[in-house]
Amino acid sequence: MSSSLGTRLVPPPGAGWFAHRSVADLAADLRAGRLGPRDLVETALAELHRWEPVVNAFVTVDEAGARDAAEQAARELAAGVDRGPLHGVPVAVKDLIDVRGLPTTAGSHHFEGRVATDDADCVRRLRAAGAIILGKTATHEIAFGPTGDRAANGPARNPYDPGRMTGGSSSGSAAAVAAGVVPLALGTDTGGSVRIPAACCGVVGLKPTHGALSTQGVLPLAPSLDTIGPLARTVADARLLWTVLSGTETTPATSRLAWLPPDSIHPTLPEVTALVRARLGDLPEVAVPQAEALRAAYSTIQGSEAYAVHADRFTAAPGLFGEEVRERLRAGGEIRGWEYVRARELRDRARGEVLNLLREHGILALPTVPFPAPLLDARAGELGDVRAALLSLTSPWSVLGLPAVSVPAGLVGELPVGLQLVGPPGSEHQLLTIAEHL
Amino acid sequence: MSSSLGTRLVPPPGAGWFAHRSVADLAADLRAGRLGPRDLVETALAELHRWEPVVNAFVTVDEAGARDAAEQAARELAAGVDRGPLHGVPVAVKDLIDVRGLPTTAGSHHFEGRVATDDADCVRRLRAAGAIILGKTATHEIAFGPTGDRAANGPARNPYDPGRMTGGSSSGSAAAVAAGVVPLALGTDTGGSVRIPAACCGVVGLKPTHGALSTQGVLPLAPSLDTIGPLARTVADARLLWTVLSGTETTPATSRLAWLPPDSIHPTLPEVTALVRARLGDLPEVAVPQAEALRAAYSTIQGSEAYAVHADRFTAAPGLFGEEVRERLRAGGEIRGWEYVRARELRDRARGEVLNLLREHGILALPTVPFPAPLLDARAGELGDVRAALLSLTSPWSVLGLPAVSVPAGLVGELPVGLQLVGPPGSEHQLLTIAEHL
Repeated sequence: MSSSLGTRLVPPPGAGWFAHRSVADLAADLRAGRLGPRDLVETALAELHRWEPVVNAFVTVDEAGARDAAEQAARELAAGVDRGPLHGVPVAVKDLIDVRGLPTTAGSHHFEGRVATDDADCVRRLRAAGAIILGKTATHEIAFGPTGDRAANGPARNPYDPGRMTGGSSSGSAAAVAAGVVPLALGTDTGGSVRIPAACCGVVGLKPTHGALSTQGVLPLAPSLDTIGPLARTVADARLLWTVLSGTETTPATSRLAWLPPDSIHPTLPEVTALVRARLGDLPEVAVPQAEALRAAYSTIQGSEAYAVHADRFTAAPGLFGEEVRERLRAGGEIRGWEYVRARELRDRARGEVLNLLREHGILALPTVPFPAPLLDARAGELGDVRAALLSLTSPWSVLGLPAVSVPAGLVGELPVGLQLVGPPGSEHQLLTIAEHL
Repeated sequence: MSSSLGTRLVPPPGAGWFAHRSVADLAADLRAGRLGPRDLVETALAELHRWEPVVNAFVTVDEAGARDAAEQAARELAAGVDRGPLHGVPVAVKDLIDVRGLPTTAGSHHFEGRVATDDADCVRRLRAAGAIILGKTATHEIAFGPTGDRAANGPARNPYDPGRMTGGSSSGSAAAVAAGVVPLALGTDTGGSVRIPAACCGVVGLKPTHGALSTQGVLPLAPSLDTIGPLARTVADARLLWTVLSGTETTPATSRLAWLPPDSIHPTLPEVTALVRARLGDLPEVAVPQAEALRAAYSTIQGSEAYAVHADRFTAAPGLFGEEVRERLRAGGEIRGWEYVRARELRDRARGEVLNLLREHGILALPTVPFPAPLLDARAGELGDVRAALLSLTSPWSVLGLPAVSVPAGLVGELPVGLQLVGPPGSEHQLLTIAEHL
């Protein structure tokens, strides 16, 4: 793979209208009367229909609902009711999250036709902020996979190269934002499911502190790991969405950063390491001694909890799961209780150690994924098992419940690469501020 | 089995000197100079040697250490240093708990010759209060069993009938107190291991709130369930020991009690139910809807965690475990992670429900064990599997982390029966106060 170290990220060829405007620009245009919410919805729908045959990012498009919401947003703005920067802005929601009146398929035949009777808590927050739900985005089946190419509705495809995966599991949310179809999207992240597709598709993805947002109305994958996070084109846009989701205010950031050499966790493409490191300048290096063990603990905790969530479906109708997810579920169901207990004990021990490390050295910086987006269906590569590799640099922080953000670092060849920042619990705004300054 | 409803508990025939004195009496005698700590130690050693061939309650007797400690206690009292009501009083410690310089065998060949280099936290508290450690008492092997008749040093025997089990796993602590060899002993309780032998041997046993006492220096069985608790002849004595262990003060008790029919959890001998109920008078009845499920959750959580603790020993030298414990460990190791996850989810759900029940109805009262002490080696009886039955009325509260006390309710035939009180977290002193008034 050719390296183009130093190449700043550019949107994918043919990227839609939203790839060239910030949410702040949209907000200003809406308030100046240069654009209305209806314009934004129609533009988003047009871009969606143009891109959908390429990327397969949406499972459900709610044209009527989005147009109704645009009308209401327009009426409110005209009447002087201003719900803030997301008022009238189209947002896409991962199809693992309930949106009232729309199906939540979770990318699985098991959930076909299951229409949500209520909004998830996070969707309620979006609506209260005036955001317009455009539709439901593709997810790796039941969110159980970092590739995004296994789903009842077929694989999501990378806007930079439709022969490549988006990463997953929030595949459609990342692809839709990268393609400029929507400015913002919601994903979920259990071991990397926001950060990995964000890195592979060249957008920003934030995985918050475990427990920071209510997961009510979201199909669980592994409850002790599950989080909901924003995807956006820029850090500033991601911050606007995070502020709405969390109800928290921006906080000042310390500027201390430390470099965590990714090869200490998983073999990483040298071009990826070099590109990410070049973005950061000279930093002190640190090691996270338990990172390897935390990766294994992730599989144990995630596999056991995922089977606990899906055991009844697995027993009743295993054939409704796709082959790969079925096999991964089966393997998760075989994990022993004592292994799960030991994984949680490791989590508790390592958490204290890593929190000390963060106190001493500040925010950790490393690549998000060891290589750019692999080809669709790739399962083994020069750096080993593709799924394990995709998760390797993100899952340790999930086990520890820590927040992490992935921001585009540039292109390697013609594919985006992500830079990941990891901080202590509650440091989401700090991570975003540091990411903005990079 | 003949019932003698209404028979107040009497000590077992031939009970030792300490069966007829309260700790408060001893404290008064020590301070009045009527007795010295050396007298108490020599009396305890003499009773021990008289009873040991009958009950097999001790694994290690520290004659020299106890005599030295008695000398020191005597010197301090003579010099006006008064460490409180346990000063100079002999105490026995379950052989799962480290006492510096003595072996901690845990009743297993796996731990033979392992001499503790430090006192457990709870032992440190005893010594700071001036108590004298007489020796280490028998435990069911690795505390994994409610019968007390499987241990490297042979079965412990019930002072009321040496052909019967003591109950377990704190078998020797209960037997030693019941036999009047020591006034006080420490046990551990994971699913009933203080309360069950207390009930079977006719003494008082307190299982505190999970997490109330440090378990540092105590061999774990199932860390999310393990507690350390006092055994004593009377509630007042148990309170003195609990006060020293916990550093907490007596609190006033509400007097609300509710009767939990034991048959709603496990079939119970009618004579046991009648005797316990007669002690309580007229009470409103309540039901704990999840109690059956909590019993199953106990086995799942305990089995997984116990295997996690002992997996390396089990793999390296399974033959060093006794046959029964080995088989129970093996079965625990087979439990799946997803089952453990579901058991913990049930625990979390049920905890809220039971806490509401306690808020509404007050303290729950029920028998401690569905029948009096079974014959040694009994594994199946008219009320089903003996081990499951022994644990059935105590383990649900262990899963919920709640404190519970077992107090003697009287005799059925010539065997003691226990009455159990269960309260909200932190209600240990309340439970003891109510128990004292019964």
